[in-house]
Amino acid sequence: MAKRKSKRQLKQGLPPGSLVFTGDRHTDAAFITLVQYNEENAEEKISTDAIIPPDEGNYLLWHDIRGLQNVPLIEQLGKQYNIHTLALEDVLNTQQRPKLEDYEDALFVVAQALSFDETTKEVQTEQIAIYAGEGFLVSFQEKPNDTFLTVRDRLLNGNGRIRKRRSDYLLYALLDTVVDQYYIVLDKLEEIIEIQEREILDNPTDANKTSLYQLKLEILGLRKTIYPLRDAVSSLTRTDNALVQDSTRIFIRDLYDHIIQIMDTVDNWRDLLNGLFDLYLSNLSMRMNNVMRVLTIISTIFIPLTFIVGVYGMNFDNMPELHWPYGYFIIMGFMFLLGLFLLYLFKRKRWL
Amino acid sequence: MAKRKSKRQLKQGLPPGSLVFTGDRHTDAAFITLVQYNEENAEEKISTDAIIPPDEGNYLLWHDIRGLQNVPLIEQLGKQYNIHTLALEDVLNTQQRPKLEDYEDALFVVAQALSFDETTKEVQTEQIAIYAGEGFLVSFQEKPNDTFLTVRDRLLNGNGRIRKRRSDYLLYALLDTVVDQYYIVLDKLEEIIEIQEREILDNPTDANKTSLYQLKLEILGLRKTIYPLRDAVSSLTRTDNALVQDSTRIFIRDLYDHIIQIMDTVDNWRDLLNGLFDLYLSNLSMRMNNVMRVLTIISTIFIPLTFIVGVYGMNFDNMPELHWPYGYFIIMGFMFLLGLFLLYLFKRKRWL
Amino acid sequence: MAKRKSKRQLKQGLPPGSLVFTGDRHTDAAFITLVQYNEENAEEKISTDAIIPPDEGNYLLWHDIRGLQNVPLIEQLGKQYNIHTLALEDVLNTQQRPKLEDYEDALFVVAQALSFDETTKEVQTEQIAIYAGEGFLVSFQEKPNDTFLTVRDRLLNGNGRIRKRRSDYLLYALLDTVVDQYYIVLDKLEEIIEIQEREILDNPTDANKTSLYQLKLEILGLRKTIYPLRDAVSSLTRTDNALVQDSTRIFIRDLYDHIIQIMDTVDNWRDLLNGLFDLYLSNLSMRMNNVMRVLTIISTIFIPLTFIVGVYGMNFDNMPELHWPYGYFIIMGFMFLLGLFLLYLFKRKRWL
Amino acid sequence: MAKRKSKRQLKQGLPPGSLVFTGDRHTDAAFITLVQYNEENAEEKISTDAIIPPDEGNYLLWHDIRGLQNVPLIEQLGKQYNIHTLALEDVLNTQQRPKLEDYEDALFVVAQALSFDETTKEVQTEQIAIYAGEGFLVSFQEKPNDTFLTVRDRLLNGNGRIRKRRSDYLLYALLDTVVDQYYIVLDKLEEIIEIQEREILDNPTDANKTSLYQLKLEILGLRKTIYPLRDAVSSLTRTDNALVQDSTRIFIRDLYDHIIQIMDTVDNWRDLLNGLFDLYLSNLSMRMNNVMRVLTIISTIFIPLTFIVGVYGMNFDNMPELHWPYGYFIIMGFMFLLGLFLLYLFKRKRWL
Amino acid sequence: MAKRKSKRQLKQGLPPGSLVFTGDRHTDAAFITLVQYNEENAEEKISTDAIIPPDEGNYLLWHDIRGLQNVPLIEQLGKQYNIHTLALEDVLNTQQRPKLEDYEDALFVVAQALSFDETTKEVQTEQIAIYAGEGFLVSFQEKPNDTFLTVRDRLLNGNGRIRKRRSDYLLYALLDTVVDQYYIVLDKLEEIIEIQEREILDNPTDANKTSLYQLKLEILGLRKTIYPLRDAVSSLTRTDNALVQDSTRIFIRDLYDHIIQIMDTVDNWRDLLNGLFDLYLSNLSMRMNNVMRVLTIISTIFIPLTFIVGVYGMNFDNMPELHWPYGYFIIMGFMFLLGLFLLYLFKRKRWL
Repeated sequence: MAKRKSKRQLKQGLPPGSLVFTGDRHTDAAFITLVQYNEENAEEKISTDAIIPPDEGNYLLWHDIRGLQNVPLIEQLGKQYNIHTLALEDVLNTQQRPKLEDYEDALFVVAQALSFDETTKEVQTEQIAIYAGEGFLVSFQEKPNDTFLTVRDRLLNGNGRIRKRRSDYLLYALLDTVVDQYYIVLDKLEEIIEIQEREILDNPTDANKTSLYQLKLEILGLRKTIYPLRDAVSSLTRTDNALVQDSTRIFIRDLYDHIIQIMDTVDNWRDLLNGLFDLYLSNLSMRMNNVMRVLTIISTIFIPLTFIVGVYGMNFDNMPELHWPYGYFIIMGFMFLLGLFLLYLFKRKRWL
Repeated sequence: MAKRKSKRQLKQGLPPGSLVFTGDRHTDAAFITLVQYNEENAEEKISTDAIIPPDEGNYLLWHDIRGLQNVPLIEQLGKQYNIHTLALEDVLNTQQRPKLEDYEDALFVVAQALSFDETTKEVQTEQIAIYAGEGFLVSFQEKPNDTFLTVRDRLLNGNGRIRKRRSDYLLYALLDTVVDQYYIVLDKLEEIIEIQEREILDNPTDANKTSLYQLKLEILGLRKTIYPLRDAVSSLTRTDNALVQDSTRIFIRDLYDHIIQIMDTVDNWRDLLNGLFDLYLSNLSMRMNNVMRVLTIISTIFIPLTFIVGVYGMNFDNMPELHWPYGYFIIMGFMFLLGLFLLYLFKRKRWL
Repeated sequence: MAKRKSKRQLKQGLPPGSLVFTGDRHTDAAFITLVQYNEENAEEKISTDAIIPPDEGNYLLWHDIRGLQNVPLIEQLGKQYNIHTLALEDVLNTQQRPKLEDYEDALFVVAQALSFDETTKEVQTEQIAIYAGEGFLVSFQEKPNDTFLTVRDRLLNGNGRIRKRRSDYLLYALLDTVVDQYYIVLDKLEEIIEIQEREILDNPTDANKTSLYQLKLEILGLRKTIYPLRDAVSSLTRTDNALVQDSTRIFIRDLYDHIIQIMDTVDNWRDLLNGLFDLYLSNLSMRMNNVMRVLTIISTIFIPLTFIVGVYGMNFDNMPELHWPYGYFIIMGFMFLLGLFLLYLFKRKRWL
Repeated sequence: MAKRKSKRQLKQGLPPGSLVFTGDRHTDAAFITLVQYNEENAEEKISTDAIIPPDEGNYLLWHDIRGLQNVPLIEQLGKQYNIHTLALEDVLNTQQRPKLEDYEDALFVVAQALSFDETTKEVQTEQIAIYAGEGFLVSFQEKPNDTFLTVRDRLLNGNGRIRKRRSDYLLYALLDTVVDQYYIVLDKLEEIIEIQEREILDNPTDANKTSLYQLKLEILGLRKTIYPLRDAVSSLTRTDNALVQDSTRIFIRDLYDHIIQIMDTVDNWRDLLNGLFDLYLSNLSMRMNNVMRVLTIISTIFIPLTFIVGVYGMNFDNMPELHWPYGYFIIMGFMFLLGLFLLYLFKRKRWL
Repeated sequence: MAKRKSKRQLKQGLPPGSLVFTGDRHTDAAFITLVQYNEENAEEKISTDAIIPPDEGNYLLWHDIRGLQNVPLIEQLGKQYNIHTLALEDVLNTQQRPKLEDYEDALFVVAQALSFDETTKEVQTEQIAIYAGEGFLVSFQEKPNDTFLTVRDRLLNGNGRIRKRRSDYLLYALLDTVVDQYYIVLDKLEEIIEIQEREILDNPTDANKTSLYQLKLEILGLRKTIYPLRDAVSSLTRTDNALVQDSTRIFIRDLYDHIIQIMDTVDNWRDLLNGLFDLYLSNLSMRMNNVMRVLTIISTIFIPLTFIVGVYGMNFDNMPELHWPYGYFIIMGFMFLLGLFLLYLFKRKRWL
């Protein structure tokens, strides 16, 4: 649970709107990718400093900041595009709940991108903040990995409708990319759940318990990420902000449907995991019970036999059986038959 | 859980609206059944290609596409009736959540038809997508089986009110057919639940546990199918789309009632299954406890007796009882009586 | 669960609005009781055919159909009063969810009357459908028993306000009669629950488990009956249908309060039953544990003693104690004291 | 559960609005306390008959009826103040759900007063019904105890704002008195819960289980009383009835806050009791397990030792050890050491 | 649970609005800190009496009362700023539910500040009440510790926007300070939960159970504090009170986001704790089961061996094996092998 640690303490006592980066500092420097495009043209510039975009050409400017440790750079961009201090604060505080802020001339969305770490088998989150205004969009990524590669490719290669649209569609496209990656994470988790399911149905071990608990935590984490995102996108479908065109709205509604579907899946998993845990417990206790039952039956068969041999180990002067020539063999045979009879009895009663 | 696998990965990175079929490819070719009808007349044409319908006659045209692997065919139909790309994408992505999309001049409904596979005892889903506009309706079925046979028969045989109505009523009739089939699936599941119930009350075995878990999964799946359909049909009863006539609305409300009834049943089952699982667990643990108790009582009777015979197996020089002429028989009789007394004691205490 | 079986299958493939009776066919013929009354006068006619009511006299006509197997009779009444086909279908499909349909000039209510079968100790349901229009009311009962006797008596004897009122008040009076009978059923169930409660607190047996499960099912069934009825009556309090007079509304609100109270009781019982089941399980496991503990303690006392007698059954040449004159008696006394000491120890530790 | 018995059966078949007292008949006669007051003056009259109040003086008249067995008296008051029959029926049916009825010129509130019976350690309920109109208020109490003593004192002593206000404020004051008594009951219950908590954490016994179950029932009962009262008071804060002055509304909102606070507390307790029950069960099973473990360990140590002594009790001709001079002592020492070793082993493994 | 004790009893019977302090009396005297500031100037005065503020200078006056035992002082302030009696009553009754009261010309907020007591490892609450009007704000703190130090510093040092704003912003700033402290408490609790988690996964002991129960209580308490605060702040974002400027609203919305985030965290913890408790129980029972299994296996191996040695302890005249020269050694060897075989068997069956 260590990574979920709140970093608010760092900021304790500072006035609201103070810009302090609270995420993990990645060693690589932060850098900006600027894509400027219009219907005819698209160009990409990469820099570690702020890039002054051209004034002419009716370009749509997409600043993609990767890595947040360079606070002055972010402040500069904030001034350039007149971003509200509280929004910038949310950008830097990487523990934000996904949300939509509806400014008069801009939209600000915070989301959590998910990826699945194959090594630790854990879901990783990365905060994505997007500030979209008329003619520009600034996206802030916590880590330097290239989340929006496919969108940039579509922009630079000029196929599809994306070059003809405004910043609202770009905002949608970025969010869609983030949500598409959720499906990959879900598939990975589903694989893990299926493996657990098979193991628990076949042969439950101690390890399954911890795995199920970890899965429960992952599901809890997913819900915490997805539920507020649903609310944010739902607001986006209904916003009357002039930035959002009607033709884009239908795409946002589609995105909303995807999130709902993901939520359904995750909620189903929660029920499924609870069912699995119950199944696991009952399977395990049944196993244990079976072992105990078999062991107890072994004891139960031998205890009367031990009594019998005890009888003939008594030292009474007058014990006629002891002097029968075949007494020993008779009693051994009798005990053998008794043992068999008890076994048969337990078998018939389905105790064995 | 294998069949629930998301196929979004296939589409990862493609722009939204890209048409890729994500369902299972059935070997049979896809084909179209076109029913064109008006109040006087009804005709059926079957083809594996798109069918150009007649311009005259004020026919209502129902294209019923069965099998979705022929993507170009679907694209052609999409162009012919001006269907939104996102709707077509939903048609081909056969893992859609049931929903209603309210376009200005058309209605688009996605639903999941259910059938019960007698062999695997599992509920099968098939995605049904219906796009209804003024004077036409296109239905897309994932599999080639004839889901809408009864509706087509009613159309061709000309009985009932269906030939006099417009595409909104046909849309209702198709959805009603889908929902009617839910009842069959519910009846099958109810039979299975009843069998489980009887077995668990009478004689619970290990197999019941897995069956209950499978049933829980089925119920979860049903809920995932029915809840969004309810929302979709509820929206349909309230839509102000010009396509939906007031005289149809009352039928849609009736359909809505049916879905609610199905939902009630399914929700009830969920509670019932939880109750059954608790009952199963407690029945099983009681059985196990009974076995252990009986075994323990056998041991408990013989352990004091074994002690007694041990006493007379001791080798002390001076043990008067050993030299009594009937000592052996006295002690054997005493132990017999002691055993009986213990049995009686346990019986009276209701331990046996 | 057999009686809850859906009969939709019978109708599979028929167009909506087809009239097929899906309830149990009672051997007695269906018959109609017509009560025609105005403020001065009230008359009762009984027939197995449709009764043509008088045109004059400003009578309010109440047709009470008991038994639904005579479908043509119901169709005839439907035509006579212009009842919607879907409403008639609901009348005949006796598995309807309680509901209110608000037609322009009429109200259609479906409810489930409850009765308690003393023999099977089960709650029986009977579908009641009421179609009320201006100047008439038709009630459809599934079974021939006289549910509305008290209302008819009040009408014929002319006491109370009922003769002065219109069909909306009669509708209320019939529903009130149905809901009043719920209280009787609740009282019966409460008795059963109290008996279970006492048994479980005093002396839980295996039978309680099944009884609790049956009660849970009954409660689930009640909820399924009462919740939608609450919604229906709630709509009735708020309907703007011209049929419902303001002076009646206050009575309907009172009816609504009664249903809410019943719901509260039933919901409380659900929690109470869950609590009882937990209590039952823990009581039972405690009993079992007590038995096992006592048995184990008996063994635990005798096992060391058996070891001791084993020691003196060894055949070593040199075992001085064996040759002591009172060795045997000393060792017997020692074992007796040891046994007492262990008993005392276990008692002091509260293990016994 | 006996006291929760519904008494609707008594009224089965009577038309709605029939006045039958369904509460417990207390031996004392019912009586009326009339307090008539205005800003200058306040007077109290006590009688067992209806009291005709003075016409002049602009008095506010508060009739406080204690005990409901005198039905004619109540009917007379009902006529005097034009109280709706259904309201009077609610007054007499002492199993009412708390509610607010908003008549055109009057407000009718039903609440349940709570008190804690120190002897039975149970919460007692008493139905309070209040009918407030312009210039008068009639309160109906089920039992003769003086619930509203403090309010009457404040009226007669003339301190505070109560004498200056109208019947809406008096209605508030009475409800506030009722709710204030809830806090006393809550404090008593809290004490009991705390005692249970301490016992369960320290030393759980069989009695705790029944106590927890009783507490659960009490909490369920409280919720059934408080939830509808919250709804009633919430309606009262929002009612547009001319009777309620704006200056009173703020007090009613304050009352509403108190009820919400009580509800929060009760809801918290429900969770807390569930947690306590889990804790109790696990504490108890842990204790039991500990006992069984210790007992089993004793057996496990002696069983191998018993085997060893059995070995030297065998009668083989050739058993060299038997003839060693110190064989007996060696083997005794060995067994002693083995026993110690096993003890040490179990201790190290933390099994003991 | 002692500290949660309601103190309403003290006030039983007093009219509403009576001012009685119900919190813990701290030994230190109550005192007031007055900060008067405008954009240019800020001054601080501390006194144990009421401070008459200057009339001129367009100062915003913030009275910060710490300690509530001086009731006359609070009454005087109430008169000075025309605070409603019920608000003052809420100030003194330190068990208030957080809430917002929207007076015509003022806002009244009650919140609970949280702090974490490192010694008792418990969350402490302190009631904060804030009454903000045009040009002034009065804050009431239950305890004398300096909760609002950072805000006062920002005011006196004049940095940031706070000096330019009105009382609505100050109200926000104070609430923000309170909520910021929640994060510290959450971090502390998270540490404790993490420790519990690690212990339970590695090596659960009896102490974890009590700790988990205590944590559950803390979480319940937190929820009781945070949920109503969320409602209050939510109302504050939507209030149309003239006091709240639009520029402040965005900050309040930010505050609201923080509370929602805290709520999410706390709700997640509740699920997590339930999961941990299940895990704890199953871990513990598994441990216990393992111990019992091993012990039972030891017994099960020795019981047949004991039977065998019993056989050769029998005193039959004719037992050939006894006279074999190496009979003893053969039988010992056989038993050794049998023991090994049983061990191997149990190992292979994974019972050991």
